[in-house]
Amino acid sequence: MSISPNWIALDWGTTHLRGWAMSAGNTVLAEAHSDRGMGTLTPSEFPAAFAELTRDWTAAPAIACGMVGARQGWIEAAYQAVPCTPLPTSFTKAPTNAASVHIIPGLSQSSPADVMRGEETQIAGFLALNPGWDGVLCMPGTHTKWVQISAGEVVSFQTCMTGDLFAAISGHTVLKHSVVSDDWDDAAFAEALSDTLSRPEKLAARLFALRAEGLLHGLGNATAKARLSGLLIGAELAATKPYWLGQQIGIIGAGPVADAYVKALASQGAPATVADGPRVTLAGLTAAWTILKGQL
Amino acid sequence: MSISPNWIALDWGTTHLRGWAMSAGNTVLAEAHSDRGMGTLTPSEFPAAFAELTRDWTAAPAIACGMVGARQGWIEAAYQAVPCTPLPTSFTKAPTNAASVHIIPGLSQSSPADVMRGEETQIAGFLALNPGWDGVLCMPGTHTKWVQISAGEVVSFQTCMTGDLFAAISGHTVLKHSVVSDDWDDAAFAEALSDTLSRPEKLAARLFALRAEGLLHGLGNATAKARLSGLLIGAELAATKPYWLGQQIGIIGAGPVADAYVKALASQGAPATVADGPRVTLAGLTAAWTILKGQL
Repeated sequence: MSISPNWIALDWGTTHLRGWAMSAGNTVLAEAHSDRGMGTLTPSEFPAAFAELTRDWTAAPAIACGMVGARQGWIEAAYQAVPCTPLPTSFTKAPTNAASVHIIPGLSQSSPADVMRGEETQIAGFLALNPGWDGVLCMPGTHTKWVQISAGEVVSFQTCMTGDLFAAISGHTVLKHSVVSDDWDDAAFAEALSDTLSRPEKLAARLFALRAEGLLHGLGNATAKARLSGLLIGAELAATKPYWLGQQIGIIGAGPVADAYVKALASQGAPATVADGPRVTLAGLTAAWTILKGQL
Repeated sequence: MSISPNWIALDWGTTHLRGWAMSAGNTVLAEAHSDRGMGTLTPSEFPAAFAELTRDWTAAPAIACGMVGARQGWIEAAYQAVPCTPLPTSFTKAPTNAASVHIIPGLSQSSPADVMRGEETQIAGFLALNPGWDGVLCMPGTHTKWVQISAGEVVSFQTCMTGDLFAAISGHTVLKHSVVSDDWDDAAFAEALSDTLSRPEKLAARLFALRAEGLLHGLGNATAKARLSGLLIGAELAATKPYWLGQQIGIIGAGPVADAYVKALASQGAPATVADGPRVTLAGLTAAWTILKGQL
């Protein structure tokens, strides 16, 4: 028996594509995944990727968030400039005859220059699940976002490319010999974090020492890896202190990376509550659909 | 007519091998290059690489510096621990029947943990060319060394892997779209350097902005590249301030990277004199030969 969604929710990032067949009451009828992320597609290949993902479902209007709306994506959905609500009042229609796909634009900030795509939908979802919430959202990932929320609007935000840096340093510098491990060392993480937070100007002197301590003193890879993570997240917390100091903090994410941010903030006397990423994404897509359906 | 050296000087690094056929009066009779660096060789392949490099020369004892003496090199030449003179009184003989090759050990520092291999020979060369010199040597490269020299000894040193970081960030993060350029922007370098030096805790907030300014405000790649370089060298100068502040500074190196360090230090009121890298390397190998020849 085929699935007949009332509408389709799409989370279309750089490396992944995830879809949900939704009922008129906004419950999930079916779910589909694909690795046909925006980074693997030319603009003309998006319609086929969408058709393939939804091949077992009858046609329905779709709403999409993420890098699908980037300049190199299906079609550019121009940024909304902050301060603004995370979702706009209208969306960008993708150029396709076979389906009706609407794309949620990202947010931009002129100074300091910053951009996001996809996270605005998670912010909208978090606010839909937590009406009236004010504070700072931390969204850990390759490019972690720190977002100041007030009265339902995104006031300002700051991206730190800590995950991207960690991967580049671990994989493409001399430290590749020292930090590859499946294990972890909580104490080393905490110590390195505290060191960078109290003396951020020493960061550049700490990195090669991870290699030298391995050569001279047998420092293990799990400890070196946790220390590198602590140094980099410490540098991020030092740079974003105006965002998190004395604020109500919500972290959107799950797994070891979100855990590291929770522990890091807790060590600085800044408790944070954690919200599950996919759940808030779907809540945000649902909020966008609520806006869109009145216009169809 | 074949070359008959009195001795052979070798600079054997990770990616290159360079040799000089030397006279009894320590003048250069001939020079040879090869790309058979330590990183491309297993221990058993070193004798053939040496034989190939010197095939046009008659046999003579050789002295070598660099990664050839690392644990993964021809044979490990155990580090000398600082404080010490840059050169030891004896060297490590490579395991080969066909030739007499002696390897100069690197230097180690227990705390903060640090190591060097090859730079100790440049330090010895610099001191041979500048007898009685006291001050700080800056040796820019993939892993820049800052070395405190007093009374002919290396007192302490600090490695910053700034070049390695720059390459990893330029090649393997989202900034690869933003910083690849053959051009340069002096003003952007100076401004970013000054920014990190005065506010090192903000570094993690500056990097993604290079991408965002390109997307939002058309920041050019040459400017973004110079700014990235300024941010990273600024972080290095912030971390190494106890080394260079108020000291006599010598920079060993040449080309754009050495120029960047000269300009960076000058902007902080710290003038530096520059010494040519290959010249000091050969002077250091000559100083090592002077020690070795009395023992053969």
